[in-house]
Amino acid sequence: MKKLIVQKYGGSSVANPEKIKNVAKRVVRYKKKGNDLVVVVSALGDTTDELIELASQISAEPPEREMDMLLSTGEQISVALLAMAIHELGYEAISLTGSQVGIITDTVHTRARIVKIEANKIHQELKKGKVVIVAGFQGMTPDKDITTLGRGGSDLTAVALAKTLEANECEIYTDVEGIFTTDPRIEPKARKIDEITYDEMLEMASLGAQVMQARSIEVAKKFDVPIQVRSSFSENCGTMIIKEVKNMEDVAVTGITLNKSESKITICNVPDKPGIAAKIFNQLAQGGINVDMIVQNVSHTRQTDISFTVPKVDSQKAIKLTQRAAQEIGELEVLEDLDIARVSIVGVGMKTHSGVAAGMFETLAKEKINIEMISTSEISISCIIKKKFAETAVKSLHEKFDLAKR
Amino acid sequence: MKKLIVQKYGGSSVANPEKIKNVAKRVVRYKKKGNDLVVVVSALGDTTDELIELASQISAEPPEREMDMLLSTGEQISVALLAMAIHELGYEAISLTGSQVGIITDTVHTRARIVKIEANKIHQELKKGKVVIVAGFQGMTPDKDITTLGRGGSDLTAVALAKTLEANECEIYTDVEGIFTTDPRIEPKARKIDEITYDEMLEMASLGAQVMQARSIEVAKKFDVPIQVRSSFSENCGTMIIKEVKNMEDVAVTGITLNKSESKITICNVPDKPGIAAKIFNQLAQGGINVDMIVQNVSHTRQTDISFTVPKVDSQKAIKLTQRAAQEIGELEVLEDLDIARVSIVGVGMKTHSGVAAGMFETLAKEKINIEMISTSEISISCIIKKKFAETAVKSLHEKFDLAKR
Repeated sequence: MKKLIVQKYGGSSVANPEKIKNVAKRVVRYKKKGNDLVVVVSALGDTTDELIELASQISAEPPEREMDMLLSTGEQISVALLAMAIHELGYEAISLTGSQVGIITDTVHTRARIVKIEANKIHQELKKGKVVIVAGFQGMTPDKDITTLGRGGSDLTAVALAKTLEANECEIYTDVEGIFTTDPRIEPKARKIDEITYDEMLEMASLGAQVMQARSIEVAKKFDVPIQVRSSFSENCGTMIIKEVKNMEDVAVTGITLNKSESKITICNVPDKPGIAAKIFNQLAQGGINVDMIVQNVSHTRQTDISFTVPKVDSQKAIKLTQRAAQEIGELEVLEDLDIARVSIVGVGMKTHSGVAAGMFETLAKEKINIEMISTSEISISCIIKKKFAETAVKSLHEKFDLAKR
Repeated sequence: MKKLIVQKYGGSSVANPEKIKNVAKRVVRYKKKGNDLVVVVSALGDTTDELIELASQISAEPPEREMDMLLSTGEQISVALLAMAIHELGYEAISLTGSQVGIITDTVHTRARIVKIEANKIHQELKKGKVVIVAGFQGMTPDKDITTLGRGGSDLTAVALAKTLEANECEIYTDVEGIFTTDPRIEPKARKIDEITYDEMLEMASLGAQVMQARSIEVAKKFDVPIQVRSSFSENCGTMIIKEVKNMEDVAVTGITLNKSESKITICNVPDKPGIAAKIFNQLAQGGINVDMIVQNVSHTRQTDISFTVPKVDSQKAIKLTQRAAQEIGELEVLEDLDIARVSIVGVGMKTHSGVAAGMFETLAKEKINIEMISTSEISISCIIKKKFAETAVKSLHEKFDLAKR
């Protein structure tokens, strides 16, 4: 049966002419089987960073409309080159910018949202037998200004196109084989996961797994677009991200994530009365700081400590804002700890399996790892520990929850 | 009085962030005087060459549509960066691609012709007080495919915009001060010409002066758009290219050009009968060879030599095609001479001044320079000489026709 397949290739998959030719070969293999192919491409390797560097030499705060004008050239170069490479193999291909496709977005430059996608042009070209190559990460406003979609934008282009075109498959090609139970660089026994739910993937993405941005998974979940994450450098199957996993309840824990790019801030001896937390976190929000985990214990002494984590890059600014708030509240002490890591276990199965949290804490205790903060969601449990224990924690939890076995 | 000024900056004027900032300063100076500014920009320095190199690593003959998709990114990068640089100086600017302006072309990719330009968008943005930055060298087909205009395309964009917008001035910024009586690297006494006619400029362009391509001058002439060619690195006035020059008849010769990139091919003892020349030059035309000067003497022996010049890059191919034709005509000998130069004098004044040709030949004779071929147009005379005499010829002719003096 003839299928319509949307494939997305990331920057590392098209980093140079040699890799572009390899992508072309893969595309042609699918085409030869009689499928219709729509291929979304990111900018070549470091192109985007180079363009940002160029802009920074001209302006510290370039207008965002012009930034989009600049950055969108990266993907335009990729699509043209990939179309050439496919032609070179004797197949017809046509490259299209986001504007040419008709990917209409709102007017929020550098992080625009897709409003709608016109499918006509793509269908026309598919009907002519052509492989359609679409520039990822970009669209245009109704006024024809070029916009970009922000981080993970090319994935989003692919997922939105798969939905609009009612594609049979949506494949996200990257430089890893799929989603792993944990980072294989830390735990060599880490296993590629065959199937994972949107919710688990969302949780893993927000907890530090870097394969896909949360945003495109949210869209995939909303419209129930099944995604396969797989490697452009191998023939192996990747990981299917889907709504419901078969035998989902058999496993309590699907994966383990590690995030070492946060720091912890603590305000000591906060008066335990209403409005204090609001005061602190309003300050931080107004400063544009994205606070992550927040822990406050109910106190029996009318005083309590409040701890929270922020991305390390925002740490300096966050400390200053927190100190200002602490000053206003009453000369409270503010502590900073850069030396932390967050280890999280994720799994929809933990909804129905009891004792998962206890198992996690026990395992860390056995390794003599002190837990500094705990935070839980419906399908995840996160612990903040000293950074030096991070790898040990991941390995022992991987062992504890039997993740190496299918 | 408020003026609408179209300025065009070439690749060397925007080769790096520093130069782009300088262009921005110049633009802002004009803007501050209350003028409306439309600025056409080429790709940064070597960008176009780098993109061509990238494509060549993928395909020896990339599809021209995709080549246009690729190359048009060069100017898109420039316009975004220039708009940023103008913002940085506190002025409003908006960059537009050829497609966004509405520069509609035919569908002949890589050398498209402009069919029409929609002026609405530009007028709208000018009315908002913005400097409008337009990507040169590019347009789009009625089907929204991106096209490029071929060599000298950015000049053409500027001239066509000046015509469409009924601009008061059209300035072409480059890395030289204007059009010179001859190449100042050869003759240091060469003088910048204040005014030159379209016809003279066309002749000089086709005879080897490299400042502007003949194509945009033809369009300027057709629509009577006065152009000023000037340097982006100085404040001096440049050269006005206009319809008629004041006191035009005072000077016989306006400039001297030198072209050392041709070679001469001679077919010996060609039978002096109808249809022979046609046979030879048909072969060459079918091979895509651009033959330049052709000289054939009427013969009194029923045999004659035919000589012509071709660009050196085409020489190999031209020789082969000529030999084939010579074989068919009757085993004629074909000679090649790579060691030639063409020296030309140009001036509308020579229509009304007698003795200009004689003066040229006399001057060369005095320097003991043998003339191998002569060819004349209404406003130019060209001589092919041995390459080693080229500089001497230019200098002595510059002296003879008093070009150093105004």
